[in-house]
Amino acid sequence: MRPEIVLFGDSITEQSFRYGGWGASLTDAYSRKADIVVRGYGGYTTRWALFLLHHIFPVGSASLPVAATIFFGANDAALPGRTSASQHVPIEEYKENLRKIVHHLKECCPTMLIVLITPPPIDEEGRLEFAKSIYGEKAMKLPERTNEVAGNYANECVNVAKELGVPSVNLWSKMQETQGWQKKFLSDGLHLTPDGNKVVYEEVVKTFNGAGLSAPEMPSDFPHHSEIDPQNPRKVFQQRGL
Amino acid sequence: MRPEIVLFGDSITEQSFRYGGWGASLTDAYSRKADIVVRGYGGYTTRWALFLLHHIFPVGSASLPVAATIFFGANDAALPGRTSASQHVPIEEYKENLRKIVHHLKECCPTMLIVLITPPPIDEEGRLEFAKSIYGEKAMKLPERTNEVAGNYANECVNVAKELGVPSVNLWSKMQETQGWQKKFLSDGLHLTPDGNKVVYEEVVKTFNGAGLSAPEMPSDFPHHSEIDPQNPRKVFQQRGL
Repeated sequence: MRPEIVLFGDSITEQSFRYGGWGASLTDAYSRKADIVVRGYGGYTTRWALFLLHHIFPVGSASLPVAATIFFGANDAALPGRTSASQHVPIEEYKENLRKIVHHLKECCPTMLIVLITPPPIDEEGRLEFAKSIYGEKAMKLPERTNEVAGNYANECVNVAKELGVPSVNLWSKMQETQGWQKKFLSDGLHLTPDGNKVVYEEVVKTFNGAGLSAPEMPSDFPHHSEIDPQNPRKVFQQRGL
Repeated sequence: MRPEIVLFGDSITEQSFRYGGWGASLTDAYSRKADIVVRGYGGYTTRWALFLLHHIFPVGSASLPVAATIFFGANDAALPGRTSASQHVPIEEYKENLRKIVHHLKECCPTMLIVLITPPPIDEEGRLEFAKSIYGEKAMKLPERTNEVAGNYANECVNVAKELGVPSVNLWSKMQETQGWQKKFLSDGLHLTPDGNKVVYEEVVKTFNGAGLSAPEMPSDFPHHSEIDPQNPRKVFQQRGL
């Protein structure tokens, strides 16, 4: 009975139901209005996401989501020749993959609200510290991602969104507006702290609201308990054809 | 592609995606294994839940959940003659309503794992403080729920579970094993703090594991990124018929 909103992305989407996570907050905000469906795949790039796309959003499906967030790029932007080189996707291919994803979703459902989210900024120092905490002296000496390169991918994500006429959230820019974003928003230089999750949550809700998908304006799936007459509880359910 | 687990209950289920919420934690624990579907209705009793039952769990549906938590009773146990009297459901009717819910779910799907959760304990002092913080001097002088009565409902919930051969979580007892449960687990004498949510999460996971619904043993919906050959990403997807 409720419309679905799908969160499609990499680990930052997969982990969005951890403590203070943006997916959990969205679920709470759309409580009794829409179901939030998490489709996050840690380590995935846009190149690999294409293999999942038709399974997660099958053409001709009877129940299609009303909205989807597409949140890749953090892995695509891994540098060639460094420790996460196997995830690197050249920026032109990243753009083309994003276009393919959006085109597919529009083919599935022309009215679906599609929101592209850019990768977050990178705290290079945080990445090195994180690697050292795990691998000790064997840890990489050069970060496998840089903030500058992540910014290039973020820019192109925003450009693709403009080109295709869909809204976007520029997380890379937004987060860097706050002093101390490196530790405030990022737990290991890349993944999000509860504060970082809050930024994603707020930006996504703002974008959804701006596009007419506002939780307070959506109908609840069943009557609020205050609408139930304790003497005749059946009445309100009957009135709504339930 | 993923099995569904439905959380059916009152406000304690509806609010389970707030900060540290047990529904969000379950979603994270079953990440890429099962979808957690929240069907929580603040203020609802088992009497009113019966009006929703056939809509949330339609007989003959093609996609039925593998498991469901049934978490009512906190409102049923509101005392007659006090401020929440309209929610009071006599204990015999509460038992009968729980039986109806379980029978319906078994009719929908005989293999569905059904877990009954008892109401939490009540901190009567906390309820009075909460009422005072909202209504000031006009607040109730006697709590609308007592711990003793909530305990009676909890006992009968456990008895119905035994009678019907389904597992249960005795939250009322479990929480009171911890010193200071009144403030540690309850935010307003009734609803759960993040620590209280953690108790529900841990007890539900323990019960699911005991019944063979263990996340680590369930298949992931798509290959882990480490299984993808960067030189030939198509291979692992083809091997799995994707």
